[in-house]
Amino acid sequence: MNESASPDSHSQTHETPPKETPRGVLAIRQVAMPANLNAGGNVFGGWILSQMDLAGGITANDHAQGRVATVAITAMEFHLPVLSGDVLCCYADVTKVGKTSLTIHVQAWVHRRNGPKLEELKVTEGDFVFVALNEDGSKRSVPTV
Amino acid sequence: MNESASPDSHSQTHETPPKETPRGVLAIRQVAMPANLNAGGNVFGGWILSQMDLAGGITANDHAQGRVATVAITAMEFHLPVLSGDVLCCYADVTKVGKTSLTIHVQAWVHRRNGPKLEELKVTEGDFVFVALNEDGSKRSVPTV
Amino acid sequence: MNESASPDSHSQTHETPPKETPRGVLAIRQVAMPANLNAGGNVFGGWILSQMDLAGGITANDHAQGRVATVAITAMEFHLPVLSGDVLCCYADVTKVGKTSLTIHVQAWVHRRNGPKLEELKVTEGDFVFVALNEDGSKRSVPTV
Amino acid sequence: MNESASPDSHSQTHETPPKETPRGVLAIRQVAMPANLNAGGNVFGGWILSQMDLAGGITANDHAQGRVATVAITAMEFHLPVLSGDVLCCYADVTKVGKTSLTIHVQAWVHRRNGPKLEELKVTEGDFVFVALNEDGSKRSVPTV
Amino acid sequence: MNESASPDSHSQTHETPPKETPRGVLAIRQVAMPANLNAGGNVFGGWILSQMDLAGGITANDHAQGRVATVAITAMEFHLPVLSGDVLCCYADVTKVGKTSLTIHVQAWVHRRNGPKLEELKVTEGDFVFVALNEDGSKRSVPTV
Amino acid sequence: MNESASPDSHSQTHETPPKETPRGVLAIRQVAMPANLNAGGNVFGGWILSQMDLAGGITANDHAQGRVATVAITAMEFHLPVLSGDVLCCYADVTKVGKTSLTIHVQAWVHRRNGPKLEELKVTEGDFVFVALNEDGSKRSVPTV
Repeated sequence: MNESASPDSHSQTHETPPKETPRGVLAIRQVAMPANLNAGGNVFGGWILSQMDLAGGITANDHAQGRVATVAITAMEFHLPVLSGDVLCCYADVTKVGKTSLTIHVQAWVHRRNGPKLEELKVTEGDFVFVALNEDGSKRSVPTV
Repeated sequence: MNESASPDSHSQTHETPPKETPRGVLAIRQVAMPANLNAGGNVFGGWILSQMDLAGGITANDHAQGRVATVAITAMEFHLPVLSGDVLCCYADVTKVGKTSLTIHVQAWVHRRNGPKLEELKVTEGDFVFVALNEDGSKRSVPTV
Repeated sequence: MNESASPDSHSQTHETPPKETPRGVLAIRQVAMPANLNAGGNVFGGWILSQMDLAGGITANDHAQGRVATVAITAMEFHLPVLSGDVLCCYADVTKVGKTSLTIHVQAWVHRRNGPKLEELKVTEGDFVFVALNEDGSKRSVPTV
Repeated sequence: MNESASPDSHSQTHETPPKETPRGVLAIRQVAMPANLNAGGNVFGGWILSQMDLAGGITANDHAQGRVATVAITAMEFHLPVLSGDVLCCYADVTKVGKTSLTIHVQAWVHRRNGPKLEELKVTEGDFVFVALNEDGSKRSVPTV
Repeated sequence: MNESASPDSHSQTHETPPKETPRGVLAIRQVAMPANLNAGGNVFGGWILSQMDLAGGITANDHAQGRVATVAITAMEFHLPVLSGDVLCCYADVTKVGKTSLTIHVQAWVHRRNGPKLEELKVTEGDFVFVALNEDGSKRSVPTV
Repeated sequence: MNESASPDSHSQTHETPPKETPRGVLAIRQVAMPANLNAGGNVFGGWILSQMDLAGGITANDHAQGRVATVAITAMEFHLPVLSGDVLCCYADVTKVGKTSLTIHVQAWVHRRNGPKLEELKVTEGDFVFVALNEDGSKRSVPTV
């Protein structure tokens, strides 16, 4: 997966590597709770995937102006564990628009507090493909804006 | 409750009433799911209160730079029902800072799609009071920024 | 909030302050489980608010003889944290009846066991306002008993 | 299962059959929500069993003055389906006390509103056996009151 | 409850007691998560009962070729606690077929890992009675195969 | 289970296309409930991903004889919607073993009843990559069997 930094970091000089910032629009923001843990004590990957799928779905729905369904995840990486109490922020960026489908790059970042310090860490990212649907579930064209 | 419009609407003329926009920073953004419904078919008020409490808590935690706990809700209004599929956006605005406590005004808005149209509706709002805590649960001073 | 003791404590003498007892009828009784915790290890305030909203709603429904919806919380205080394993008891008391609305004072108490000793502690209380609705969601009059 | 009526109905005359009333103390009271449904549209039996197990456990805990665990269900009947919106009331009655175990008869009743009418229906009942445990999980004697 | 060993253990010699193996077909297989714990730190009995009820229901549905409902549990034993992280396997065996009802013996076993060692332990078992229903909820005959 | 079946089993004759059957071992088997639906009325993709992640994790844990964590999903396809009441069966097949990582192909099939007929449909499939971890969270070698 190509972890490109966000557009606004491009103009920085080469001496210091540009600090990566979230890519796309904020689509889901939620607190990880003890009910979302796995038996190992970290946040369950399935819960994170659920939030990312919702984030991609909201953005696909906005772009396609109506109902969508997830049809594929073409790449998905888990970089760091998520902890109970982390604020999970899912950003979504439309990266490809086909006739009836949309590809959305979704990144999950956490805000994690250690006393006065607030860390912002990219925890996962992936590419989700959605298809636009009519109300009867048949495919429809993605509107051209 | 006086539904004040957001600061950026102040310069508008008197002929058309300023359109209200969300007040505060976006703290929680989540999709209302069928699992969150009450028996009447609308989203359960307790779920909405939970999201607003989380939103206030995140913002209080940011401001107080550490652990907080909800101690009171001094006013809370439910304006409109929330529906399954709505994107619930909770905005939080610090309105008062005491020695150990913070008051946060929390507004919940939904994004509701009707085909190509996306409605943005304020559904609830309330004032949540938080107290800053040490790790042992005793009160601590809110840091002055 | 200055909590009046229950009616049956009124005849006590002044030497010993009357022990407060729950006010209203028992409407919800439930065990707080680990799934209901927040990241701080106490029971999540949103879960407690949910139980209180249900308690007020049951009692409002009984009084209004049909569908109701929460429209406001005018005052809500969190006195003590709730722990996993506590039995949460929510009591509801109709305090005001309007043409289409009802105000219900809801108190949450916990039963907490420490070996042979069972503590009963008031943990939260608040005033919830409900409106009586027809099946189509329009307001209706609260029946006079 | 012998569906005995409650003690206070014994003195009634034979002309009209005594109306059955709940047996035991109210231990759990909760609203059945859409999240608790099975695919058939009724409340999932597993949710009802969970509430009854909690009800028996609270009462066993009270009687044994400490930790208990469910060891058996010797009889359990489902009489009527539970619907979304029903208020589920679980009553528990200690029917047998052994050296380290307790048998609790648990009945679940629902309050179901049809406009001005409130039906009270016994929906399930069963006999739950609990054993008293020390904090380390070993058996302990049930205290004699 | 008569814990009969599985059929394939019958031919073993008497010197070593036949090792018990699960009885019936695998109907439910799920991981116990922290969200399923009770306040004592073990998996909540109500969650286990829910999985067993689902397991019996799947098998009854297969045998009756359509909708079924649980009507009774005639015997149910909890042998061992279930821990977070255990893989819960529910096996179901049709033990009696009546005109409109079916009795299913359900056993729950866990797979529990301790480093390289995987323990398989029978944790609970019980007899669940189901009745075959038409879509309108009336009883129907169990088809004879 | 007879693992054949995938499109690349080309050496079969042309007369009748080989019927695809599930690939791998059954790792998760669960009933999709109304609580798992999305706002569109189908089962939420995040719930399905959660079950598949658990299925891959169980099998990776078995093969690696201890703790594992999901690090990537390299391909994931949603073929058909899952409905409330479907029995979801997740099969897992170890397809690649590296020094510290394992790739598992996970397929989800549903059993869906229509009266006497039971359909078996492949609904999703994907490749999940797990890494073997020590108890402290550091990587460890996958044991060679």
